[in-house]
Amino acid sequence: MLKLHSYFRSSAAFRVRIALQLKGLPHEIIPVHLLHGGGQQRQPGFLDLNPAGLVPVLEAGGEALTQSLAIIEYLDETHPLPPLLPADPLDRARVRALALEICCDIHPLNNLRVLRFLAHELKVGEAGRDAWYRHWAETGLEAIEARLARRAQAGDFCHGDRPTLADCCLVPQVFNARRMNCRTEHLPTVLAIHDRCMALPEFVRAAPAQQPDAG
Amino acid sequence: MLKLHSYFRSSAAFRVRIALQLKGLPHEIIPVHLLHGGGQQRQPGFLDLNPAGLVPVLEAGGEALTQSLAIIEYLDETHPLPPLLPADPLDRARVRALALEICCDIHPLNNLRVLRFLAHELKVGEAGRDAWYRHWAETGLEAIEARLARRAQAGDFCHGDRPTLADCCLVPQVFNARRMNCRTEHLPTVLAIHDRCMALPEFVRAAPAQQPDAG
Repeated sequence: MLKLHSYFRSSAAFRVRIALQLKGLPHEIIPVHLLHGGGQQRQPGFLDLNPAGLVPVLEAGGEALTQSLAIIEYLDETHPLPPLLPADPLDRARVRALALEICCDIHPLNNLRVLRFLAHELKVGEAGRDAWYRHWAETGLEAIEARLARRAQAGDFCHGDRPTLADCCLVPQVFNARRMNCRTEHLPTVLAIHDRCMALPEFVRAAPAQQPDAG
Repeated sequence: MLKLHSYFRSSAAFRVRIALQLKGLPHEIIPVHLLHGGGQQRQPGFLDLNPAGLVPVLEAGGEALTQSLAIIEYLDETHPLPPLLPADPLDRARVRALALEICCDIHPLNNLRVLRFLAHELKVGEAGRDAWYRHWAETGLEAIEARLARRAQAGDFCHGDRPTLADCCLVPQVFNARRMNCRTEHLPTVLAIHDRCMALPEFVRAAPAQQPDAG
């Protein structure tokens, strides 16, 4: 069985949980608590799986797969239905670019280890850290909104009428932005897509609150 | 003809330039200077192409494609030879994870707009900014070294005996790390792969110094 090393609040793990649910793949969730015991992701057993010390890790085919987007592409290649990427190469490029715009240009700036470095090493203070968080979340989501609004008529989700890799990334990012009190009310297309996703049971089952380690 | 909007020092643009060279695809380079005139990437004409205001953008098939990894996957899907991803899904996942570990976990923390925000908004000072840069470059490349060293025997490049998507990402990241005086001498596998790549004319032609806007 597939084993996903996950932390309930990790948006990267959340992306993979959504993909596993959309594919209907049985899997075991192995919680990795990023705060307890100095961070379970920094313990030797976990570092053997992933030297970068980051969740998620998917154990599949005898390998420990890392990086949420690489994991989701693997799931899509090995379990093609329902597809998480469209068929046409230009459309695939658009969906991947939306996903990467979230996974490269927003999330890495705002994850736990980065916020800690700002606070502990650069001593920017709580107000500085929060300004940083909101700046990148809002700037990034505004660019996503601009991109989605151009093609809002094209479907109910980020691309077309069913969820793709892009929606697997968008929903966790909106979840994070709200948790950190970022402005989102000026992002109507983003929010409409988010709400359509969260009306689906697959997204609900993947959400942080439904995880065994939620608390 | 393919048109690549590029900045000579952008490591994301450098990745795509390598892929275009490895594929042997004729293309026009359109320089976008990130510093001149307040940043040409923030001018309306460019923002029409990419609302995120980031290079690279590849004009192909009537669309403006963004995000270096999405662009390279598109090139690989539309021009399969030589392949930039292996055939087996587990191997593809490994190559994509290496690429993403660079493109998500190192580069976004160290690009120009982020360094500017640290300096101008958070006032961390030059020493703080440099400590930040080196921390993420070195931490990230050390994780890559650990991952590559496990399989160093498997080939001359990041994965096997010819360059893949992972090498398209590794070489520009090493270039950046050196330019910023980061420690790299403790990364023998990374450096050996870098040097093998830079012995190939395709990588040399894609390098910053060879670009029309170098200066």
